[in-house]
Amino acid sequence: MIGRLNHVAIAVPDLAAATATYRDTLGATVSAAEDLPEHGVTVVFVELPNTKIELLHPLGDDSPIAGFLAKSPTGGIHHVCYEVDDIRAARDRLESAGARVLGDGNPKIGAHGKPVLFLHPKDFCGTLVELEQA
Amino acid sequence: MIGRLNHVAIAVPDLAAATATYRDTLGATVSAAEDLPEHGVTVVFVELPNTKIELLHPLGDDSPIAGFLAKSPTGGIHHVCYEVDDIRAARDRLESAGARVLGDGNPKIGAHGKPVLFLHPKDFCGTLVELEQA
Repeated sequence: MIGRLNHVAIAVPDLAAATATYRDTLGATVSAAEDLPEHGVTVVFVELPNTKIELLHPLGDDSPIAGFLAKSPTGGIHHVCYEVDDIRAARDRLESAGARVLGDGNPKIGAHGKPVLFLHPKDFCGTLVELEQA
Repeated sequence: MIGRLNHVAIAVPDLAAATATYRDTLGATVSAAEDLPEHGVTVVFVELPNTKIELLHPLGDDSPIAGFLAKSPTGGIHHVCYEVDDIRAARDRLESAGARVLGDGNPKIGAHGKPVLFLHPKDFCGTLVELEQA
């Protein structure tokens, strides 16, 4: 069912410093910072040859990553995102296997303009998993 | 400098259960479990079209992931591994930028038979980074 690893998301307390680390210290290609107010984050994309890293920083008062950074002030890996062909079919398969889909179970439009869902970390090896329809 | 994302490593408390989650629930192709006593882990490879996930379980009394699982009993993402062309040149560049390389700074032979180094999480957005010579 799952296909490509679309991205690894890393929550960071200082987006400029994290961008410099990936651009200057690790020598990767990075995008300009982009505010995504509907997702409560500002994001910088680190382009690797086979996938990307997303550096996430809280935006606004209700950011979904604010709690994560409160617990992990130096930042850390927030989630991984796998691609699926059909997100509703994926959800139905997961729910029938007893896995928990976060929220109301309906796909939302994610940061790349495609339908996404998040899965409960306790059902997936302690890892927050995003599914994105490819 | 960094190239492909070689893998994302997830430490898991129950390797059979984690393998079943990725194989049956998420529908991915998984390898047989492989003991790597020199690295203190048993590993299952989850093959994705563009990269792989490595499910790591402690092996032996001195496993490098035992402490991680003691702190995160349900498991979690342990590290990401980026490929580099020349690991000694990468190390020299990182050290001259003030980043800390773990251990004695000399590359070891990693789980794939290639030279690897680990970088200090505090210098890389709270993320343990492995570099592997491609």
